[in-house]
Amino acid sequence: MRLDNGNLLAQIGEFLAEDIGRGDITTQACVPPNTKSVGFFLAKENLVLCGLEIAEAVFMSLDPDSAPLETSYHDGDEVHSGICFAVKKGYADILLAGERTALNLLQRLSGIATMTRQYVKAVEGTNARIVDTRKTTPGLRMLEKYAVTVGGGKNHRLGLDDGVLIKDNHIALAGGIKRAVEAAKASVGHLHKIEVEISNWAQLREAIEAGADAILIDNQTPEEVKKLVEMARSLNPDVLIEASGGITLENARSYAEAGVDLISVGKLTHSVRAVDISFKIQSAFAQFS
Amino acid sequence: MRLDNGNLLAQIGEFLAEDIGRGDITTQACVPPNTKSVGFFLAKENLVLCGLEIAEAVFMSLDPDSAPLETSYHDGDEVHSGICFAVKKGYADILLAGERTALNLLQRLSGIATMTRQYVKAVEGTNARIVDTRKTTPGLRMLEKYAVTVGGGKNHRLGLDDGVLIKDNHIALAGGIKRAVEAAKASVGHLHKIEVEISNWAQLREAIEAGADAILIDNQTPEEVKKLVEMARSLNPDVLIEASGGITLENARSYAEAGVDLISVGKLTHSVRAVDISFKIQSAFAQFS
Amino acid sequence: MRLDNGNLLAQIGEFLAEDIGRGDITTQACVPPNTKSVGFFLAKENLVLCGLEIAEAVFMSLDPDSAPLETSYHDGDEVHSGICFAVKKGYADILLAGERTALNLLQRLSGIATMTRQYVKAVEGTNARIVDTRKTTPGLRMLEKYAVTVGGGKNHRLGLDDGVLIKDNHIALAGGIKRAVEAAKASVGHLHKIEVEISNWAQLREAIEAGADAILIDNQTPEEVKKLVEMARSLNPDVLIEASGGITLENARSYAEAGVDLISVGKLTHSVRAVDISFKIQSAFAQFS
Amino acid sequence: MRLDNGNLLAQIGEFLAEDIGRGDITTQACVPPNTKSVGFFLAKENLVLCGLEIAEAVFMSLDPDSAPLETSYHDGDEVHSGICFAVKKGYADILLAGERTALNLLQRLSGIATMTRQYVKAVEGTNARIVDTRKTTPGLRMLEKYAVTVGGGKNHRLGLDDGVLIKDNHIALAGGIKRAVEAAKASVGHLHKIEVEISNWAQLREAIEAGADAILIDNQTPEEVKKLVEMARSLNPDVLIEASGGITLENARSYAEAGVDLISVGKLTHSVRAVDISFKIQSAFAQFS
Amino acid sequence: MRLDNGNLLAQIGEFLAEDIGRGDITTQACVPPNTKSVGFFLAKENLVLCGLEIAEAVFMSLDPDSAPLETSYHDGDEVHSGICFAVKKGYADILLAGERTALNLLQRLSGIATMTRQYVKAVEGTNARIVDTRKTTPGLRMLEKYAVTVGGGKNHRLGLDDGVLIKDNHIALAGGIKRAVEAAKASVGHLHKIEVEISNWAQLREAIEAGADAILIDNQTPEEVKKLVEMARSLNPDVLIEASGGITLENARSYAEAGVDLISVGKLTHSVRAVDISFKIQSAFAQFS
Amino acid sequence: MRLDNGNLLAQIGEFLAEDIGRGDITTQACVPPNTKSVGFFLAKENLVLCGLEIAEAVFMSLDPDSAPLETSYHDGDEVHSGICFAVKKGYADILLAGERTALNLLQRLSGIATMTRQYVKAVEGTNARIVDTRKTTPGLRMLEKYAVTVGGGKNHRLGLDDGVLIKDNHIALAGGIKRAVEAAKASVGHLHKIEVEISNWAQLREAIEAGADAILIDNQTPEEVKKLVEMARSLNPDVLIEASGGITLENARSYAEAGVDLISVGKLTHSVRAVDISFKIQSAFAQFS
Repeated sequence: MRLDNGNLLAQIGEFLAEDIGRGDITTQACVPPNTKSVGFFLAKENLVLCGLEIAEAVFMSLDPDSAPLETSYHDGDEVHSGICFAVKKGYADILLAGERTALNLLQRLSGIATMTRQYVKAVEGTNARIVDTRKTTPGLRMLEKYAVTVGGGKNHRLGLDDGVLIKDNHIALAGGIKRAVEAAKASVGHLHKIEVEISNWAQLREAIEAGADAILIDNQTPEEVKKLVEMARSLNPDVLIEASGGITLENARSYAEAGVDLISVGKLTHSVRAVDISFKIQSAFAQFS
Repeated sequence: MRLDNGNLLAQIGEFLAEDIGRGDITTQACVPPNTKSVGFFLAKENLVLCGLEIAEAVFMSLDPDSAPLETSYHDGDEVHSGICFAVKKGYADILLAGERTALNLLQRLSGIATMTRQYVKAVEGTNARIVDTRKTTPGLRMLEKYAVTVGGGKNHRLGLDDGVLIKDNHIALAGGIKRAVEAAKASVGHLHKIEVEISNWAQLREAIEAGADAILIDNQTPEEVKKLVEMARSLNPDVLIEASGGITLENARSYAEAGVDLISVGKLTHSVRAVDISFKIQSAFAQFS
Repeated sequence: MRLDNGNLLAQIGEFLAEDIGRGDITTQACVPPNTKSVGFFLAKENLVLCGLEIAEAVFMSLDPDSAPLETSYHDGDEVHSGICFAVKKGYADILLAGERTALNLLQRLSGIATMTRQYVKAVEGTNARIVDTRKTTPGLRMLEKYAVTVGGGKNHRLGLDDGVLIKDNHIALAGGIKRAVEAAKASVGHLHKIEVEISNWAQLREAIEAGADAILIDNQTPEEVKKLVEMARSLNPDVLIEASGGITLENARSYAEAGVDLISVGKLTHSVRAVDISFKIQSAFAQFS
Repeated sequence: MRLDNGNLLAQIGEFLAEDIGRGDITTQACVPPNTKSVGFFLAKENLVLCGLEIAEAVFMSLDPDSAPLETSYHDGDEVHSGICFAVKKGYADILLAGERTALNLLQRLSGIATMTRQYVKAVEGTNARIVDTRKTTPGLRMLEKYAVTVGGGKNHRLGLDDGVLIKDNHIALAGGIKRAVEAAKASVGHLHKIEVEISNWAQLREAIEAGADAILIDNQTPEEVKKLVEMARSLNPDVLIEASGGITLENARSYAEAGVDLISVGKLTHSVRAVDISFKIQSAFAQFS
Repeated sequence: MRLDNGNLLAQIGEFLAEDIGRGDITTQACVPPNTKSVGFFLAKENLVLCGLEIAEAVFMSLDPDSAPLETSYHDGDEVHSGICFAVKKGYADILLAGERTALNLLQRLSGIATMTRQYVKAVEGTNARIVDTRKTTPGLRMLEKYAVTVGGGKNHRLGLDDGVLIKDNHIALAGGIKRAVEAAKASVGHLHKIEVEISNWAQLREAIEAGADAILIDNQTPEEVKKLVEMARSLNPDVLIEASGGITLENARSYAEAGVDLISVGKLTHSVRAVDISFKIQSAFAQFS
Repeated sequence: MRLDNGNLLAQIGEFLAEDIGRGDITTQACVPPNTKSVGFFLAKENLVLCGLEIAEAVFMSLDPDSAPLETSYHDGDEVHSGICFAVKKGYADILLAGERTALNLLQRLSGIATMTRQYVKAVEGTNARIVDTRKTTPGLRMLEKYAVTVGGGKNHRLGLDDGVLIKDNHIALAGGIKRAVEAAKASVGHLHKIEVEISNWAQLREAIEAGADAILIDNQTPEEVKKLVEMARSLNPDVLIEASGGITLENARSYAEAGVDLISVGKLTHSVRAVDISFKIQSAFAQFS
């Protein structure tokens, strides 16, 4: 996924407004205007870095004339605890005004990338891909889904318009799997595949016979999943199979080895632990810019 | 804190747009228009509820004519696992379109309230209050700070304009604590108190003598904190004292017993675990309006 | 497709602002305030009606308390010249302020629906579906695509994010069809099919062998298309085939009979003729509300 | 008319968002980042060019650092079929993301300018000016009215606030022409003239005697118009006279020769045929900036 | 002028946000939720009332379900000192949150209406009309121009697009009055009149001979104005004449008696004195809704 | 206070749109495109300058490539009548389009700074500070409060969220001063002080005993104020005391000498007289950029 800079800047403007409100009264009182300074981003634990471009956009949004972030790292790099991974030079009031917003984003997105990388490594060597869900923080979906790709995961649907996923609620309201799948085929654009959530063998058979392109097996043990995968492949060897529900770092590999194509993990985005990053600002005595 | 309904609705409109995009193609294909239905919110674990009004606003934003959420619970109530705490009646396509956004908010905010309540209980009986920080999710600060109050905590600054907190960076750039405090007193409105972050006894003394109203002791052990509190009180019995840095559920009480007035906990908002809540939708055979 | 009323109202607010500016100075000068009146929508030619809900939204946007549009017609109905298909009661200044915007939308959308219906009838009885393109009027895509469905057509991609369509430009820049298709399969979500534009047999073979789900045959005669369809089906009987380029009402059936699944017609939206509809307003002597 | 660049850029940002949505997934998958490329705009039929600045703004909106459009043409120039009238250099993903929006605008606006030019030529040598109407595409009024001036036409009212035009509906609701004109004179600013729509001699006399500055003769034959013009001039030689309704390329000159000052043509903007323009993109091997 | 309620509400939402920010912390702390109360608007001096609808909109914006403002007054009425001219019932927190914004608007707009009324009375019985200028408070033009009409004045141009007024700067840059007037006649729509600012007899003659519809005499004594008016009428008896510059309540009548049609007064909007109005809130013991 | 350039530019864009509407039709007609010109800002009376940065932003908003304003003055400088205090070079149509908006802001803000300076001088040598109120023009609060600081005054609350000020209405609704102050202390953040409005000795005592940090004495004579100040200081020597109500340039010093810390003056912002500033534009013959 590539970030959309236009949207990003608009959104960051709102984030900054949320934090700064009518002005950073502490800095306005204590720090002389036009004080040149340097800020250092430090990893306080091992992490997969995500959000460099976003942190940069925070400061650029406050001062478009400031120097670019100096860094030799890229999103996706693993950074060890204690490393200074980026340096930002600029006026002290700009750095102080952007500090919290930049850190809040960097820490959260790096947290997502770090956890995703752990899941990806857990299934390494299998055919399964780690994917995210729509259980993202409202307002941050594109950033969080970007962080998942930075960590090595893939994105599931970006929104309700981005794919057909027929769940139990739809099946009940449509009057069965067959009717739901047929209605979907008649209605949606010809470039969309159709995925159906199932929880047992009868449903799986009905879905595949109705022409489902992909199957979501929800909340089953790895052993159950394995059996269902084999049955599904015998009906349609090309059908895509996704497992979800209760996936942990510990059991992810078992699901992968059960033969699924995709493993979706809600906690990648709904229960993020912010990684620890600090930003230390020093006055700069030498001229810059 | 009371929620600002005007802002809330605008924001929820954006959250829904983020998830729905150009339309919920699955539901539009599979579910007949005007299907009346009922949705049940279920707690899947013990939790402190937060966000009822917000979940309601999600559905109202999609259909202003729909019936109000039916519930006998209030934000702040403890709900046991297995309990259906609210019922929403409405057209199936509305319920399905709002489901994910409502859950993403409810689960996150209840997660914050639940964790906050744990901290509040940990210091019960002492004079210390649990407060949040500015380490909130960009875009969600007011909602997350609301959740902290629902959990029983208090809010620290809502933004950089909401109070003077002179940190190490400011002190360095201002040329010392004394100069920073004096500059702040001369500059900010007469209704603002001034808080200074310190990390040793010399700084504490300088801050109090310069007229600081509150002191933030960062990253010290409970024992150190206790000593600093005593020294501070001897200089100014009315000075407010806050501890921060490395506070856990386990050690929170030690800090409280060290005599501080406030304990700030970043993880209340920066590392939230979403609590487990589900939303089950059934077709409604009977008429409702 | 169902209309998104939220977006629609926002957009209509902008359309009205564009036309009304700082106020309808003629009506404010000449028409007494609170003059009750009735407006009649008349078809001045045979047409397929589209936009009733939208015309209604125009007046509701100006006066949320006004009575709903009275009509026994629905979008998609064929209306004969001379028929009054809808009646709007309301204050004269509201009707006059909304008249032009309502008509501009109704006439354009009914124009699209009317032309689409002609194409749909031209291919009736074949397996081919008439689809639109992204050649829509900037700002009106969703409304115009809605009008196409009202006319009986189907929608192609709603935007660049709504499907993978690898065109000549992409192929050249990617270094060939095979590399482009493989890159797409590795990159996009698992619910997206992949369509490739081809113009000869070698390309078609490469695309299908690389795993393309759909083929776009651009700017070929019906005879050529027929041959390419047969070749394609021999490689993969399930591949979807779309014809585009130079499709007219006269030759559409030949393309349909060549065996394609989809025929895309740019002029449905890029060269619309507004159908003739008038709106006559009379003063109402009797009370209404 | 001069374009308002501020508004234009905001609007183009919305047009691009409409087409690009969450991202150009085909290009992101198939085209390597930072691929330098060149795009060529080709006229596929004879046309009056309109929209160069707008097409430029589309790409600038996506990449403010890209090179300006290279062209030796200006809006209003006649371009022959087969001519490459402009070249845009830039990153391939930028050119592909902007292509459709740029073409949709260029083709539509050039279509308007081309048709306008034909009408202007049809009345060349007479005193009559071709003018547009408020029958524009909602959201595009200023751009479409600009295209009319590029084609050589003049603009009628830009909106309901831009002039007083008393139509049959106003007359009926005001209680007659005399009362409507007097009310308008008393109400509107002293810099506004007053135009009255009439359809017969008695109305014309009443309007002029009441002090109308301009007369709109609607839906009359050229012969009728000629008689009414003569009568009008005998009452007030300075009165402006406009003909409208049923004007075609074939009969426009007859109306002009009937002595009117203005001929308004709704189809200039309500029934536009997009002219055929293509955009071909090639990879650029040489460096550009 | 009639107020545009759509715009008004949006604007009032912004005004309230400006004052309330993240919340009315005093009221949230001190006043119990859902306290029913009554607020009384009192004139503390004699005034011409303006802004009832706007004050109402302030409270409705905060609580759409609150009861309408109770009043027997209308905008334009003269209210004596000591009179309670309106009563608003509602929840105390709503009344307190809207109080300042409602008063700031009411006091300012009534100030404008009051001063305008004084000028209008000063020229009563002459043919001269009091008009405003574009010297309004940025962001409040339409409200302030509305207040002028409430006071009995008329509006000059609402903006730069609302009329042609050729001033000294334009004349210099155009190369003379004749060229400026001719360029304007060729360029602007046929419903616009053309006004020219002059300061001596030669300019006046050149303007009228070039076909100016209106003349602005700037910064001349009443005696000078009288002479210029007579000269102007001898050239074109229908030409409109406006005086501006240095008009006071004391000399306004002299200008009017010099025979001008319009007298423009900048201070009506650029130097407003807010009239004194108070808002007293009481708790309501009885039920209201 | 420092201005927030981000917000400022957005707001100025709206101000310009309000004045320019669909375009400056006079200039577009009369002034050739790309005419280079120079504009001179002249003080027509003695004034305290305020708004240079804002005037600059007006023109930059219209043409980001134009040259910066040339000036050797700063906000807060006293400028004598007749002085040209700033020069703006740019295209004539840009200067004419921005002229009115720039002047409207400069004249109003300099008017506020000028009046504030007079009040500040009136109390020079005492301990009292002149402060503003929330009686600002809706939409312009931050600019007006900035002008107050430029004039030498201090800002009272920026909004309802920026401090606790318990007024008579709150006291009545809360059930007394003691309950209100206690509720406020329990509710608001620990960095907020609490101010209470009182009008007699009993209230003053209750407020101070309840722990109020600041006292607002409303509408008392200087003699009364003096007595209340002495009583207050005897209860709590650190309590801040503010006087308000009926403060004039003539009596301000008496209030200051009564020993208050703050004197708030509503008319600084609610009844501003615009100072007289003109902007003269000349064609520039020499090249500039």
